[in-house]
Amino acid sequence: MKVIETINEFHKTRNNITNKVGFVPTMGYLHEGHISLVKQARTENDISVVSIFVNPTQFGPNEDFKTYPRNMQRDLAMLEPFTDYVFAPSDKEMYPEGYNTWVETRGITEVLEGAIRPGHFKGVTTVVNKLFNIVQPTKAYFGQKDAQQVAVIKKMVKDLDMNLEVVVCPTLREPDGLAMSSRNTYLTPEMRKGAPVLYKSLQKAQTMVEEGEQSVTAIRREMTDIINKEPLANIEYISFTDNETLKEVYHVKQTTLVSMAVKFGKTRLIDNIVLG
Amino acid sequence: MKVIETINEFHKTRNNITNKVGFVPTMGYLHEGHISLVKQARTENDISVVSIFVNPTQFGPNEDFKTYPRNMQRDLAMLEPFTDYVFAPSDKEMYPEGYNTWVETRGITEVLEGAIRPGHFKGVTTVVNKLFNIVQPTKAYFGQKDAQQVAVIKKMVKDLDMNLEVVVCPTLREPDGLAMSSRNTYLTPEMRKGAPVLYKSLQKAQTMVEEGEQSVTAIRREMTDIINKEPLANIEYISFTDNETLKEVYHVKQTTLVSMAVKFGKTRLIDNIVLG
Repeated sequence: MKVIETINEFHKTRNNITNKVGFVPTMGYLHEGHISLVKQARTENDISVVSIFVNPTQFGPNEDFKTYPRNMQRDLAMLEPFTDYVFAPSDKEMYPEGYNTWVETRGITEVLEGAIRPGHFKGVTTVVNKLFNIVQPTKAYFGQKDAQQVAVIKKMVKDLDMNLEVVVCPTLREPDGLAMSSRNTYLTPEMRKGAPVLYKSLQKAQTMVEEGEQSVTAIRREMTDIINKEPLANIEYISFTDNETLKEVYHVKQTTLVSMAVKFGKTRLIDNIVLG
Repeated sequence: MKVIETINEFHKTRNNITNKVGFVPTMGYLHEGHISLVKQARTENDISVVSIFVNPTQFGPNEDFKTYPRNMQRDLAMLEPFTDYVFAPSDKEMYPEGYNTWVETRGITEVLEGAIRPGHFKGVTTVVNKLFNIVQPTKAYFGQKDAQQVAVIKKMVKDLDMNLEVVVCPTLREPDGLAMSSRNTYLTPEMRKGAPVLYKSLQKAQTMVEEGEQSVTAIRREMTDIINKEPLANIEYISFTDNETLKEVYHVKQTTLVSMAVKFGKTRLIDNIVLG
């Protein structure tokens, strides 16, 4: 495994690779969810590349950029068995003085996470575009946990004609159902105990649909009840949308994405499933 | 020479090319200036690619998108001796329904042409980004005539870490000094006769600098006088800026770009030189 810190060196390295490159962009503080992406990238390609970069431009001014958990040594140890190249640039390498080019996908970034975190997806599309230009992957791997991010990146890749395939992998969960996330580390033991309520409500939605329920109103009511029984949980949104366009739906279809954000104190947890 | 009309087919073709690719993006209606770029692209690379696409998103609502001159048959005949692949997509191929991703380089797009043509450079960076993703060139060739375009594209390539080199080639001129441009075809014979006044004023600036003049005010005064002697010419701007940052300068340096836009009736002509 080779760790590369500059764009220039990565470009030079990449110019000598003609094999298939599988790429997993991350913000580090890795968990089993990330590792499952890396394993799949390695299986489906000749070479696996992982980037570790906490991207400042996707955090709002009052968000957790400074406190976002970081542990490069641990990350590298976890990646070592499965990874050929790690790209770990500094903030200044990615955004040098005078940096001023932005990639923006509109139409699907104004809702859900984008509505609550203005500018977030502009930061995401910009950094992922840059990382794709640096790594030039054959396939890039993302977790379904960030459902809107997946939809936005797929749309950017399609609109900008990027010559690569976006592969979406299932959300990995703790034994009690909580979706794995680097931000879970923010939870107090009490919050952590209540956090599986997100997935419980999603499972309830799935069961209701399997039993024939199609009304979004009815399903949302049941989900809200389940989450509100947990005193530390505060619902930001429970949303039913088309999985690709993220347009709101009122009757459940095969491609309906149920996504949610729930706050425990200052910590926002997100989760989702595709129904049907 | 092979003509390719779809992104998908170009990607497939490109995946089988490991040689150096030289790329010349054009809006067609080719002249000797374009051909000189193609010749250089062919000389410096193994394979030459030319795109022909009149990009709707870089024209303002009151600009000449519909009347922009087009002649695909003539263009292909001119390219045939020097070109391996022509990429000639339809508008719908490049901007299908629901298209909504935009690449924007800020800081240097608000002045000069960008000030007069709002949104123009957003259209330019978006389409050039797409074309670079489709063609994946080793080197891309642009004419110095569009000086701001060159600066903007260089900045976009640098900011977005695109793995290619932007090569800038000298402006080709008619025998009387008029910079070659597809839009010269709009000029009436009378306007055409007066049009070399742009280059005459630029030559005057060059001479003054060689003779020791450094004051932008003094040079601009002489240039303005020369152009205003031509009754059909209306100056939009004569601008002295740093060649890279496009920040205004008041004393001439080695890297000072003198650029101008002059209207003849409804036709805008632009021209420039780098002083020193």
